[in-house]
Amino acid sequence: MKKKLRSILNDQATKKGRRFDLFIQAMILISLLAYAIETLPNLSPATIKVLHFIEIVCLVIFTIEYILRIIVAKKPWKYIFSFYGIIDLLAILPFYFQGSLDLRSVRAFRIFRVFRAFKLIRYNKALNRIHVAASLVKEEIVLFFIVSSIFMYISSAGIYFFEHEAQPEVFTSIFHSAWWSVVTLTTVGYGDAYPVTVGGKIFTFFILLIGVGIVTIPAGLVASALHKAREIEDDKKK
Amino acid sequence: MKKKLRSILNDQATKKGRRFDLFIQAMILISLLAYAIETLPNLSPATIKVLHFIEIVCLVIFTIEYILRIIVAKKPWKYIFSFYGIIDLLAILPFYFQGSLDLRSVRAFRIFRVFRAFKLIRYNKALNRIHVAASLVKEEIVLFFIVSSIFMYISSAGIYFFEHEAQPEVFTSIFHSAWWSVVTLTTVGYGDAYPVTVGGKIFTFFILLIGVGIVTIPAGLVASALHKAREIEDDKKK
Amino acid sequence: MKKKLRSILNDQATKKGRRFDLFIQAMILISLLAYAIETLPNLSPATIKVLHFIEIVCLVIFTIEYILRIIVAKKPWKYIFSFYGIIDLLAILPFYFQGSLDLRSVRAFRIFRVFRAFKLIRYNKALNRIHVAASLVKEEIVLFFIVSSIFMYISSAGIYFFEHEAQPEVFTSIFHSAWWSVVTLTTVGYGDAYPVTVGGKIFTFFILLIGVGIVTIPAGLVASALHKAREIEDDKKK
Amino acid sequence: MKKKLRSILNDQATKKGRRFDLFIQAMILISLLAYAIETLPNLSPATIKVLHFIEIVCLVIFTIEYILRIIVAKKPWKYIFSFYGIIDLLAILPFYFQGSLDLRSVRAFRIFRVFRAFKLIRYNKALNRIHVAASLVKEEIVLFFIVSSIFMYISSAGIYFFEHEAQPEVFTSIFHSAWWSVVTLTTVGYGDAYPVTVGGKIFTFFILLIGVGIVTIPAGLVASALHKAREIEDDKKK
Repeated sequence: MKKKLRSILNDQATKKGRRFDLFIQAMILISLLAYAIETLPNLSPATIKVLHFIEIVCLVIFTIEYILRIIVAKKPWKYIFSFYGIIDLLAILPFYFQGSLDLRSVRAFRIFRVFRAFKLIRYNKALNRIHVAASLVKEEIVLFFIVSSIFMYISSAGIYFFEHEAQPEVFTSIFHSAWWSVVTLTTVGYGDAYPVTVGGKIFTFFILLIGVGIVTIPAGLVASALHKAREIEDDKKK
Repeated sequence: MKKKLRSILNDQATKKGRRFDLFIQAMILISLLAYAIETLPNLSPATIKVLHFIEIVCLVIFTIEYILRIIVAKKPWKYIFSFYGIIDLLAILPFYFQGSLDLRSVRAFRIFRVFRAFKLIRYNKALNRIHVAASLVKEEIVLFFIVSSIFMYISSAGIYFFEHEAQPEVFTSIFHSAWWSVVTLTTVGYGDAYPVTVGGKIFTFFILLIGVGIVTIPAGLVASALHKAREIEDDKKK
Repeated sequence: MKKKLRSILNDQATKKGRRFDLFIQAMILISLLAYAIETLPNLSPATIKVLHFIEIVCLVIFTIEYILRIIVAKKPWKYIFSFYGIIDLLAILPFYFQGSLDLRSVRAFRIFRVFRAFKLIRYNKALNRIHVAASLVKEEIVLFFIVSSIFMYISSAGIYFFEHEAQPEVFTSIFHSAWWSVVTLTTVGYGDAYPVTVGGKIFTFFILLIGVGIVTIPAGLVASALHKAREIEDDKKK
Repeated sequence: MKKKLRSILNDQATKKGRRFDLFIQAMILISLLAYAIETLPNLSPATIKVLHFIEIVCLVIFTIEYILRIIVAKKPWKYIFSFYGIIDLLAILPFYFQGSLDLRSVRAFRIFRVFRAFKLIRYNKALNRIHVAASLVKEEIVLFFIVSSIFMYISSAGIYFFEHEAQPEVFTSIFHSAWWSVVTLTTVGYGDAYPVTVGGKIFTFFILLIGVGIVTIPAGLVASALHKAREIEDDKKK
């Protein structure tokens, strides 16, 4: 009995396992969509009722799934403290605190329903390839994280130095200037913070010359790693 | 007779086939240009007359082309419901509904004239290489579509959580926040929606750190696939 | 004598040839800098005098260089109508028309002094590698130019359809909407034109999903071609 | 004794060397964080006191480190005028000038504390790979720097020519227009400067068509070089 359940919950090779996976994936998508619709303004009371009903149905299913997973697990505690175990718990926990806590904190808790999106990853074995690619470029990514951090610190402190006097409300401190660094180095450029002094503009010129390269390099690295991950996969199949 | 026509319509290897292709390509370009000019404000009545005349000429030619293609096709129904068959129909259909329908819906229908642009693809056999490249990275592209979707959902829900209270008119719901996610993760950054709270800015910082990479990786994948597609083509020629 | 001059003007292998190249390169840079400084507002009369003097010196040198190049060329007409021959002429011509034409057209002519920047390319033999790389990906670049054009037409016509009624002054016609397409697909996103309707925003979402990839792919192609161009160069050296 | 000190300061292979490195790295991070916090507005006097104390502790440690490095160096002058020697000096110098100089210049001097960030690079041997990769693509990067410069000059002069009359306060001179070129070609697009005339917009269209590629190519080059640098490293290990 326990063995049968385990094969349904964890084994995608069997027909029942695949069906169960598809069912949970559908419930996750419905739950995420309901959550998004709930945030729309001016919903009719009827719609809100339907959304709450959907939420409760999803919750019951996810709770049953969570309990079953603990039951069938060979080492229950290992599952509970695993990445997916915590995600599965966070996906149902907020609801059970709704009654006992005051309204404001419940609102804050509801954000955790977003974690259900992570549950989708388990049900997509195809996402494994990203895992392989990530481990291939782990070192380089860490390297670029350090370099980017140093570079962002220097650019934030530099622009603070050049622009603080001219725009004290935008470049209030190095921390405030860091917002400008992020928005500029990723080339998003909202336009809410930009240098106006000649010094600040020339500084930005040099920062962009070097910085845009630094920020966009990881994408190239991941792309080539993903290419390699596929080759490794193809080799295994042979 | 039918065989001769077929070779003109479908075979670019013959001289007449190439000439026919070039002629239709020119008519498509003229039609698209005329459509664009029609939208200009303050056109003189003479210009409008000329544009309408061009449109009717193009329409007649495209209608004849469509009928001929049905006639010469070995399996007419297969052509009609093929990708190009539907495009060819959509490129002429709007005009024939202009008389029977009221003015407003005709306006909406005229947008379908844009589909003529797709007709150009058939007449550029060179575009086949993109086809080959696309099939090479199909799996990875689907993968990234899923990851990007999950990522965009989380970023939309997250920014909604941080910014809804401070800017209720911009981050009205998760759907409204999705607009911010698209504009930010593609690094377009119009500046019509951006976080103003400290929490929202720090959240954006982490979202950009991971997100910009996710969104730009497919470009690198396609580039390398296109490179491979060329090699495959070169191998075939040998 | 003519042979000696030719070696100085065209041969970078000799010491005199390299010195001549360096001298002309320096003159070009000085001329470009002077041109930029001339556009600054509130220049003192003394500065303007110095700039005019520099301009005349540069002009005399470039004119002598042009005449010498015609003299030493084995086929003078071939040089005159070559790419560099035309650039060399455009770099000096504007000045000689200054006296005979009225003030306004002279202003327009002065823009041609910018062409002197192109002269720098000849004096940098290293730029040849770009030539090699460009010829390697010529076909793909043409291909992407066609695809991008079709894509931009569709996105311009589409956004015009969605946004024209809501923002008639920004999306006045398909041509006006093309400006939005360029700024959005290259992810520049100035913020002077962006969709405000729900339909327009959803349309932009799909356009960006596909479009950003299309526009950024050529960069990847050129990068890999440049890599190959270097390998070809290294092979030749061996 | 001197030999022992040298091994602690310069040799990461020993246990004491690694501990010393970690200690200095921690002090640098604390110092950088303190510097950033100091720029926050409305700090309590107690906080300022703590920050000053941290700064003095860091300074004493860095000064001792600097003196020790001079003592243990086999060729002291070589170290003093090396890249790291100058960085180490710049990281402590500003403080010692605080007393003797007036308030304004001290503020300007404090920016040099940022240079401490560069000290982090020495303590991360992993950053060496970037060194290797940089030397692999040095030539191409220089090449692109030249091409980008020429391209930026032409685009700045061109947009000045098209937009100066319509927006004299934004495109005041070629130098002012260069700010637009930087922000546009890196696709940051703050929205503080953009063309409004038809000529300027068409010019921008062509500039972006070519320019975005030119600016983003170096990132691709560095990514592939980094890939190669890793292979070289792996080969050495074998």
